[in-house]
Amino acid sequence: MTNIFTLSPIGTVACTRTQAEDDRWDMEQTTIALDPAVLDADAAAELDSFSHIEVIFLFDQVPDSKIIRGARHPRGNKDWPKVGILAQRGKARPNRLGATICDLLSVDGLTLRVRGLDAIDGTPVLDIKPVMTGFLPQGALREPDWARTLMADYW
Amino acid sequence: MTNIFTLSPIGTVACTRTQAEDDRWDMEQTTIALDPAVLDADAAAELDSFSHIEVIFLFDQVPDSKIIRGARHPRGNKDWPKVGILAQRGKARPNRLGATICDLLSVDGLTLRVRGLDAIDGTPVLDIKPVMTGFLPQGALREPDWARTLMADYW
Repeated sequence: MTNIFTLSPIGTVACTRTQAEDDRWDMEQTTIALDPAVLDADAAAELDSFSHIEVIFLFDQVPDSKIIRGARHPRGNKDWPKVGILAQRGKARPNRLGATICDLLSVDGLTLRVRGLDAIDGTPVLDIKPVMTGFLPQGALREPDWARTLMADYW
Repeated sequence: MTNIFTLSPIGTVACTRTQAEDDRWDMEQTTIALDPAVLDADAAAELDSFSHIEVIFLFDQVPDSKIIRGARHPRGNKDWPKVGILAQRGKARPNRLGATICDLLSVDGLTLRVRGLDAIDGTPVLDIKPVMTGFLPQGALREPDWARTLMADYW
């Protein structure tokens, strides 16, 4: 498989957190400045009829040499099982994509204010999607204990 | 903003649907063949401890000329409001990214079986993430009526 695709940011994250940290992302209020060179002025029209958005972004500070292609302990914590990189949400993953649902606080043209986006200042944003009930998980959710423990202080 | 990022597929969708259609995606059982040239054999280890995964993929059949950068009526339906492309989940969007939560049926090495993935045969997969309760929306979800109507027959 040799296909390569090029993507360009549609905007950039601005917030007070400049280093990746594991926890307390709910403390951040974040601005997403969408790029008027890429989007028309009405690209976010009516977005504020949704309470939540999903932001797809790039962990662009992760160097290629750090990317995990197999398994590891989440956060390097040996109390948790060694699981595949696709069974965890860490940033050192192939293609370095993040996808996080956050609260949409306000929309002003191409400027969005959100709460709970786990992306540092300067992060390139690749897409914004509205969160619809119809796209949430169908049926009961099952997850391992380590995932609940890991997330306990995340927000 | 002139940054351009290159991404390569980590796998490919195989299913019986070869054309994009709007509804009844729950009828599809889909295989995701992860690429052993990109991932180690244990990249999906323990993924089956989760009931649901989020698949991030590329709507690679959408030509650049069709991409919407402003607003339009979802599905071209004038009964619904004209909303920004970032306020809908249609495929003709900047960067052509899809992100869908689906049921994980089985994991066999680098071969995943899923139900409810709205991607056609041959679609490039860019990332797989486990769905954790901690990453679902916090607080009550608000969405416009058209979004509920649009999704009524989607699955």
